[in-house]
Amino acid sequence: MKILCNKADLLKGVSTVSKAVPSKTTMPILECILIDATSAVIKLTANDMDLGIQTEIKGTIVEKGMIAIDAKIFSEIVRKLPDSEISIETNDNLQTTITCEKAKFDLAGKSADEFSFLPKIEKDVSINISEFTLKEVIRQTLFSIADNETNKLMTGELFEFSGSTLRVVSLDGHRISIRKIELKEDVESKKLVVPGKTLSDITKIVSGEIDKDVVLSYTNNHIVFEFDNTTVVSRLIEGDYFKIDQMLSNDYETKVKINKREFLNSIDRATLFVKEGDKKPIILDIGEEAIELKIKSQIGSMDESINIEKEGKDLMIGFNPKFLIDALRVIDEDEVTLYLMNAKAPCFIKDEKENYIYLILPVNFNVGA
Amino acid sequence: MKILCNKADLLKGVSTVSKAVPSKTTMPILECILIDATSAVIKLTANDMDLGIQTEIKGTIVEKGMIAIDAKIFSEIVRKLPDSEISIETNDNLQTTITCEKAKFDLAGKSADEFSFLPKIEKDVSINISEFTLKEVIRQTLFSIADNETNKLMTGELFEFSGSTLRVVSLDGHRISIRKIELKEDVESKKLVVPGKTLSDITKIVSGEIDKDVVLSYTNNHIVFEFDNTTVVSRLIEGDYFKIDQMLSNDYETKVKINKREFLNSIDRATLFVKEGDKKPIILDIGEEAIELKIKSQIGSMDESINIEKEGKDLMIGFNPKFLIDALRVIDEDEVTLYLMNAKAPCFIKDEKENYIYLILPVNFNVGA
Repeated sequence: MKILCNKADLLKGVSTVSKAVPSKTTMPILECILIDATSAVIKLTANDMDLGIQTEIKGTIVEKGMIAIDAKIFSEIVRKLPDSEISIETNDNLQTTITCEKAKFDLAGKSADEFSFLPKIEKDVSINISEFTLKEVIRQTLFSIADNETNKLMTGELFEFSGSTLRVVSLDGHRISIRKIELKEDVESKKLVVPGKTLSDITKIVSGEIDKDVVLSYTNNHIVFEFDNTTVVSRLIEGDYFKIDQMLSNDYETKVKINKREFLNSIDRATLFVKEGDKKPIILDIGEEAIELKIKSQIGSMDESINIEKEGKDLMIGFNPKFLIDALRVIDEDEVTLYLMNAKAPCFIKDEKENYIYLILPVNFNVGA
Repeated sequence: MKILCNKADLLKGVSTVSKAVPSKTTMPILECILIDATSAVIKLTANDMDLGIQTEIKGTIVEKGMIAIDAKIFSEIVRKLPDSEISIETNDNLQTTITCEKAKFDLAGKSADEFSFLPKIEKDVSINISEFTLKEVIRQTLFSIADNETNKLMTGELFEFSGSTLRVVSLDGHRISIRKIELKEDVESKKLVVPGKTLSDITKIVSGEIDKDVVLSYTNNHIVFEFDNTTVVSRLIEGDYFKIDQMLSNDYETKVKINKREFLNSIDRATLFVKEGDKKPIILDIGEEAIELKIKSQIGSMDESINIEKEGKDLMIGFNPKFLIDALRVIDEDEVTLYLMNAKAPCFIKDEKENYIYLILPVNFNVGA
């Protein structure tokens, strides 16, 4: 095999597929990037068996062929080369020579025969979402998946298609994040549970332009994202997702409108008094015209009041400050509305159209503390 | 005590003195910043017994007094406060209340009686150096101090004053870095060994402006840096520094002029093949018109040639690539000159006026490898 391509194109391709290279594995071939120059275009592929990424790069195929190269060393070499044309050439012993200007690197490649190619996907449906919207909806929900593996379903996000709506849901047992987005057309109803890692990787490689689309398709076991000459194939998480709608409610006893930035900054300050691991709640003392935020720990105490618009009863309720911060950070609006029932019932932060709903469970607190 | 000051001033002061707060100590008082509002100005001080920093901040003293506050929590509070006026007030129980807009923090302070104040220094000499020059000379030499404590002198830098010259020297047993700077006037001859940590902290708090000066003074045990309402007092390292001049030589058999950027980038690429801990040398094969750089390891091999101007013999010599990189990175010139004797003698990288000299010992290499 011999190919020529320029550094910028190769580097972009290598960075893209590297997301599917596992950081730890007992199978050295999974640590490789496959360079496939057997057809008319140069394709790079990496596949950790749960997630596979393939991307096409510009370049010239001088001699057809395939080679698998250690992803880490390959991407480091490419990154450090001068901004110029790169030649990659292999011999019969899989020895690979990378040349750029006067620099010449030799390293041992692996046979493409060992490589796990991406599964072939039969595409029945395809759904278009703008890159920007997909990236945003992931950012606005991904923080509340669970990171432990005791409940596999919690490590993924529900992608629920119905009519012309996509609802994305994540939950970790303490909170639920829900975002609804309008699609350009009606699609078949379908529920998919997509691994959190896949979504996190997608946000890193999708450029996020508003007028470029990602094309989604799926089978029973896989979801496919196509954009920008790149195909990402991920396994789905098996099983029925949690019944979210039973947990949602429109009743409330207290409704609070508050400036988001002030609320967020104040909670952020309160976290100074919370050492990692100790579960000190922040106490919201909701009065007629202001919320008083209070936190007290061995280190010291904080007390701050913020003006609000309130309907309904006064209420004192405690939260894990991190959960409030996570939700407030991904809400773009200047003002948010909290709906509360009592000190033991979940708090809902949502907009009127319910394009977003963040449900957060309160924590017990000792008023005297 | 009660003082008022604005956030920006207080934050700058706290960040400055925090450099003298030890990260680990068994004495809680050393983890504190002292706020001293007993005189006409507000002074902040921290002191880890080796290094002490004091800075004055703008503000109003409403009620005179002193208090020591945990540096970490205090600086985090100040950082997170709104950009507004801050009030700090203590009561008779050393309880300290920090108020800013509607936020109020309470924490326990410590008595100033426990605090170790900076040593009083009798100033006989004072030497002016521009902040820029001091920062530069530290950056250009500090990388080659030794970080282990087996030879205390190697963990500091020699500041050698003679005539109107300051010579700064660091060495770690494998290399020596020397920078000479012209002072504005003649000063008394003196050799001081300044701890590396002090110099590293100084570069972080000196702003580096060309037309502002740092005033240096010293006693037998201490060096003092004064700038921008800030005083840094550091212990000196005791003992006679190494006799550098015996190690320097002007003889050479091979003289090489090379483009610094090309040389540096090429060595940087070669380091891809060196895993941390394995001491693979880079081999410089110096020919008539080019240097060939070669490195070979289990991972693979690299080979690159760079055009040079050469005088004298051809030579093949091996180096730890990191040592070459460290020296080349801090040389600002576009072209550098290497002076070599043979494969076992040190290489000198220096300019004609010897304003800088970087001596690097070669390493053995196996030509066949």
